[in-house]
Amino acid sequence: MTDTSLPSVPRTPLTLLGTGAMGTALGRAWLAAGHPLTVWNRTPRRTAALTAEGAVAAGSAAEAVAANRLVVACLLDDASVGTALEGAGLAGRDLVNLTTGTPADARARRAWAEERGARFLDGGIMAVPPMIGAPGAFVLYSGDPEVFEEHRDTLAVPAGTEYVGADAGHAALYDVALLSGMYGMFAGITHAFALLDGTDVAPGDFAALLVPWLNAMAGSAHGTAERLVSGDHTSGVVSTLEMQVAGAGTLLRTAAEQGVSAELLVPFLDLMRHRLADGHGEEDISGLVETLRTR
Amino acid sequence: MTDTSLPSVPRTPLTLLGTGAMGTALGRAWLAAGHPLTVWNRTPRRTAALTAEGAVAAGSAAEAVAANRLVVACLLDDASVGTALEGAGLAGRDLVNLTTGTPADARARRAWAEERGARFLDGGIMAVPPMIGAPGAFVLYSGDPEVFEEHRDTLAVPAGTEYVGADAGHAALYDVALLSGMYGMFAGITHAFALLDGTDVAPGDFAALLVPWLNAMAGSAHGTAERLVSGDHTSGVVSTLEMQVAGAGTLLRTAAEQGVSAELLVPFLDLMRHRLADGHGEEDISGLVETLRTR
Ligand SMILES: NC(=O)c1ccc[n+]([C@@H]2O[C@H](COP(=O)([O-])OP(=O)(O)OC[C@H]3O[C@@H](n4cnc5c(N)ncnc54)[C@H](OP(=O)(O)O)[C@@H]3O)[C@@H](O)[C@H]2O)c1
Ligand SMILES: NC(=O)c1ccc[n+]([C@@H]2O[C@H](COP(=O)([O-])OP(=O)(O)OC[C@H]3O[C@@H](n4cnc5c(N)ncnc54)[C@H](OP(=O)(O)O)[C@@H]3O)[C@@H](O)[C@H]2O)c1
Repeated sequence: MTDTSLPSVPRTPLTLLGTGAMGTALGRAWLAAGHPLTVWNRTPRRTAALTAEGAVAAGSAAEAVAANRLVVACLLDDASVGTALEGAGLAGRDLVNLTTGTPADARARRAWAEERGARFLDGGIMAVPPMIGAPGAFVLYSGDPEVFEEHRDTLAVPAGTEYVGADAGHAALYDVALLSGMYGMFAGITHAFALLDGTDVAPGDFAALLVPWLNAMAGSAHGTAERLVSGDHTSGVVSTLEMQVAGAGTLLRTAAEQGVSAELLVPFLDLMRHRLADGHGEEDISGLVETLRTR
Repeated sequence: MTDTSLPSVPRTPLTLLGTGAMGTALGRAWLAAGHPLTVWNRTPRRTAALTAEGAVAAGSAAEAVAANRLVVACLLDDASVGTALEGAGLAGRDLVNLTTGTPADARARRAWAEERGARFLDGGIMAVPPMIGAPGAFVLYSGDPEVFEEHRDTLAVPAGTEYVGADAGHAALYDVALLSGMYGMFAGITHAFALLDGTDVAPGDFAALLVPWLNAMAGSAHGTAERLVSGDHTSGVVSTLEMQVAGAGTLLRTAAEQGVSAELLVPFLDLMRHRLADGHGEEDISGLVETLRTR
């Protein structure tokens, strides 16, 4: 760290376990901000990009853990965290786990870490590696609130931070719920573009309308949240479930006309029909959450 | 029209067929802007809200059509347009059909109208009645470009206008494609909220993250459009199909942990797996459009 333009405030030193695509992007951001960084990777040569930028490579995960109090893991999956840290001295360490897993994985990993004398914070990275260090990227955190508070500034270096609760499983829950919402949207986008096949509609012209349309319609999630809290799915409804089921026929007939399989739409239309048949025709579609919960 | 605050420019008179929820909202906007309005509805008493605001009710659809050159239909479905206009003198009329239908319905209705001497413009309303006359609402138009140009200002009164081509089917195609994209997103939102059931995550806290997240991710549709045009689904890919299929396991395991049926996500995950198995692991998910087209 010879860059004399760096401010003189000492930066928290930390250890990074895992220098795959994401670990390397995170490590670069900490190095660029002047944090002394110790790295370890199962395949040692993959630390080269970071050591070239000033990181120190440890010979083993245990050695890397011994180097610093703050230890960030960004490995393939939860099982690899267990494997990598087997035998490392975790007592007195703050383990921040940025490895993707389920809520139950995170809670179990916290118990595992605490048994070994470490404090534990789980994280879910809502970004791809090129977004790290740029605005828009954020990481969801949950678990030990003191770990989050203490390392907040360091954690904020590669991406924005969103602390979502003391339950270690919450970051993974939010992460998976956000991704699930996104994949639903991607399914809709995929179906929409497939409908244009064989027509002279330019995909770019359509995208120019689709993106603001989806942005406007996404806001309905705020209303869904309010109805889920109040339990009231009927007052002030503008588009009733009954009207929406009636309109679904046009979507299916258009898919058939365009020769596009409706497989991506059918489960949601079926869920709507199912709730309508249960007598909820006057509801907002927010009520579908209740039906899905009981399937 | 005794409101002396109205500007003195004469407004185009027009006829509105259908005063259901949407027709009434449209009619109100035209009346408020000073357009002389003739209305007709199959069930006559349902024109009362508009006649109270200055509209003239015609005794039959034929009489209503005879009253003005510009005739707007907003009826239940395409079949009701045929029924309502049977026997009306359409020659010399400009028929603007805001009734929801498929692209083929719109093209057939155009031929039908032109055989009877009318010019034809189809429209797809991207709004619910309370949005009519407020910013954000828009109507997609396609068909005779001269009709659109000539009546553009009148059509712009209740909602913004988007002309999407001379093919009369294009408005319906865009309409259905936008709605299909939206229902995909709603499916994702429904699954996401269902995951929170039985946890102490406040739905409103989650929505506060979900909405901006979906807004950020919707932008990927621009990239999808570019890849569909170029046919190149592999260059510059950040999240490969292979990585995304690998990550899908966490989504499914989390759904299982939370006791939520994955029925809304499975078809898209299956489509991803299917394309991966076909050897497209290095692609962006934009490539899925190609697979869906051939299913
Ligand atoms: N890339 C993204 O877009 C993205 C986005 C959000 C979250 N994430 C998450 O970030 C984490 C890392 O992802 P990545 O993109 O960096 O993946 P990656 O490039 O495939 O790297 C995987 C890392 O895990 C290590 N690893 C795998 N199995 C291991 C084991 N049994 N023991 C020890 N180390 C093991 C690999 O070491 P070797 O080099 O020895 O194989 C490598 O360091 C994952 O949990 C991922 O879900 C990634
Ligand atoms: N409401 C929305 O949120 C919305 C949004 C976008 C697009 N749209 C479209 O707008 C159109 C009208 O919808 P709306 O909400 O106004 O529906 P609505 O309130 O149910 O009104 C339906 C209208 O169609 C008439 N009608 C039904 N069958 C008929 C027939 N066989 N012959 C003549 N008239 C008939 C009804 O007349 P009676 O009064 O005699 O039954 C009524 O005027 C539909 O195509 C709908 O898809 C609606």
